[in-house]
Amino acid sequence: MLPPALSDLIEAFGLLPGVGPRTAERYAYYLLRQHNDTPDKLAAALQALPGGVGYCRKTFALVPAGQALSDLYTDPRRDKTIVAVVAEPFDLVALEKTGHFQGTYHVLGGLVSPIDGIEPDQLHIKELVKRIDEDKVEEVILATNASVEGESTALYIQQQIGKRKVKITRLAQGLAVGVDLEYADQITLGRALEGRQAL
Amino acid sequence: MLPPALSDLIEAFGLLPGVGPRTAERYAYYLLRQHNDTPDKLAAALQALPGGVGYCRKTFALVPAGQALSDLYTDPRRDKTIVAVVAEPFDLVALEKTGHFQGTYHVLGGLVSPIDGIEPDQLHIKELVKRIDEDKVEEVILATNASVEGESTALYIQQQIGKRKVKITRLAQGLAVGVDLEYADQITLGRALEGRQAL
Repeated sequence: MLPPALSDLIEAFGLLPGVGPRTAERYAYYLLRQHNDTPDKLAAALQALPGGVGYCRKTFALVPAGQALSDLYTDPRRDKTIVAVVAEPFDLVALEKTGHFQGTYHVLGGLVSPIDGIEPDQLHIKELVKRIDEDKVEEVILATNASVEGESTALYIQQQIGKRKVKITRLAQGLAVGVDLEYADQITLGRALEGRQAL
Repeated sequence: MLPPALSDLIEAFGLLPGVGPRTAERYAYYLLRQHNDTPDKLAAALQALPGGVGYCRKTFALVPAGQALSDLYTDPRRDKTIVAVVAEPFDLVALEKTGHFQGTYHVLGGLVSPIDGIEPDQLHIKELVKRIDEDKVEEVILATNASVEGESTALYIQQQIGKRKVKITRLAQGLAVGVDLEYADQITLGRALEGRQAL
């Protein structure tokens, strides 16, 4: 019933995560009706993607292809002795947006998750330990998610760092800003109590 | 913080309807991690779109570019004297999927909506009236949405058809299949009562 050019596009949009047939139809039909250069822009951006992105050799953050080290690592104003360890490149973006962090990052490339078949040696943990020695790191902030995988990855890294003289910290857990106490779940509230701070 | 190849793609995805920065990031990062040919497939489909789709000269349904008439119109098994009038090409697909309709279609290309600046003469209503005369149409099914715009467009078309000897029908309004009576809204329930049928 639909021209192949349209049904092919609907099928291709359907490959994106969380995009069902209805959403794919909506995207495709929207582009068909617009009569502007959005399809070309999107096509060009898609083609530029695989050749345009590389990984920092030291921090494994995303960098423009051909660039060896991330600007966030080479910037002399960033403190190389403080390393925030995150699971994914976008976690780094979230932390960076706070404007509260002047150290450097280390991207693990995921979290230990036996169910999904992700073993510790698939993550950049060895490189982190090596970096602790090389850069004389004084503090490692384990900024992984407050989930089971995030917690167990943090624990594993803690073990790997072993007896090295380095302060290991974890992001504070507690009430989200703006959240009513009565709506907070019990575990979060428990952590907020444990981590209470003197005024 | 992100390589331009990635931020460009996030920006381009953000042009799609209902896609905010978070969703665009998710799509882009998913494609980056997959290391397969999905970006190429999607890019190729996008590039093929503008040149690949045309409109049927008679019914204004979507057709492969270069094809003058829709297969649903030229098929000798379809009854040209019964015409279902729909707002958009995908409404045709929805009706066709029921398998209950053996007539032909007429796509208006939208609904009359003064707020959105869509006037009746921007829709394919003149062509419908011409078709009623040419094809000796016996029944026009006004299959527009059960919304204010759908209703007023149906009324306008009814006026344009005027005193021509043609049966004008409207899709039945009532309870959706599987819906509990107590959860149906009052207007729908009122229409279901009005349109009650003898068993």
